[in-house]
Amino acid sequence: MRIIGIDPGTGIMGFGVIEVLKSKKMQIIDAGVIRTRPHQPLDERLVEIYDALSEIIKGSTPEVMVIEKLFFAQNVTTAMSVAHARGVAMLTGAQAGLTIAEYTPLQIKQTMTGYGRATKKQMQEMVRLQLGLIETPKPDDCADALAAAIMHALVSRQS
Amino acid sequence: MRIIGIDPGTGIMGFGVIEVLKSKKMQIIDAGVIRTRPHQPLDERLVEIYDALSEIIKGSTPEVMVIEKLFFAQNVTTAMSVAHARGVAMLTGAQAGLTIAEYTPLQIKQTMTGYGRATKKQMQEMVRLQLGLIETPKPDDCADALAAAIMHALVSRQS
Repeated sequence: MRIIGIDPGTGIMGFGVIEVLKSKKMQIIDAGVIRTRPHQPLDERLVEIYDALSEIIKGSTPEVMVIEKLFFAQNVTTAMSVAHARGVAMLTGAQAGLTIAEYTPLQIKQTMTGYGRATKKQMQEMVRLQLGLIETPKPDDCADALAAAIMHALVSRQS
Repeated sequence: MRIIGIDPGTGIMGFGVIEVLKSKKMQIIDAGVIRTRPHQPLDERLVEIYDALSEIIKGSTPEVMVIEKLFFAQNVTTAMSVAHARGVAMLTGAQAGLTIAEYTPLQIKQTMTGYGRATKKQMQEMVRLQLGLIETPKPDDCADALAAAIMHALVSRQS
């Protein structure tokens, strides 16, 4: 099973593609971020995100897209901006025929570390270990996207 | 100039297309709503919105899309859901080559009625008068979308 994790955002959108091997081990296929310019109109940024993500999906052929449910306790303006990008990411995945799975940050932390209040560092260390990497993937958006993908792999493994 | 106004939402998205004639009079070309089912997964709803809106744009050939800026004082969960649909609507318009214009509800009310706190009824009456209609377009989402389009026509007329 091949899974793409998405950490949505308009300025920076993280993505991480993993392959779950028959041995149940996970392997990183592709990971990175899509960046758009801060002063660019929102509609142009959304088109860039759509185009870039479409290319990534075409290139890495995942079957499932995992995307964090938005947590909007902090800044509503930021959350609104993220929601625009998140809508476009979900659309892009669905149009490409991917199954879309959504989890809350709490669910992801809980599954990855057994602890819903795990720190960013702890999460990144789990991503590194699960994928057998020497270093933690950078930037954070990329590690968060991989965490979402890994979480889905772990949950699917159990069922 | 032909303008499509959008009142974004995931469950119901209003649209209204108007033509600004050489005489500066406005004429309604098309108006209605895109509905998606409440219990349908969000990604499927976004695909339906994208497809339906693409068809509407293809059929009515507007050059400009006017879309309300989100006002999120009331219900954050609703606003987040609207923001997903709004992102998809902006993407659809931009991909079809439309110029995207955004206004706040306050700007729209102010321009339409000269009063930022105009009621829904007052706004709908202005929509009816500006388009020379016998009745107010229904439902509200459709009238709101037309109001956004008319507002842009009025602002463009001044410049």
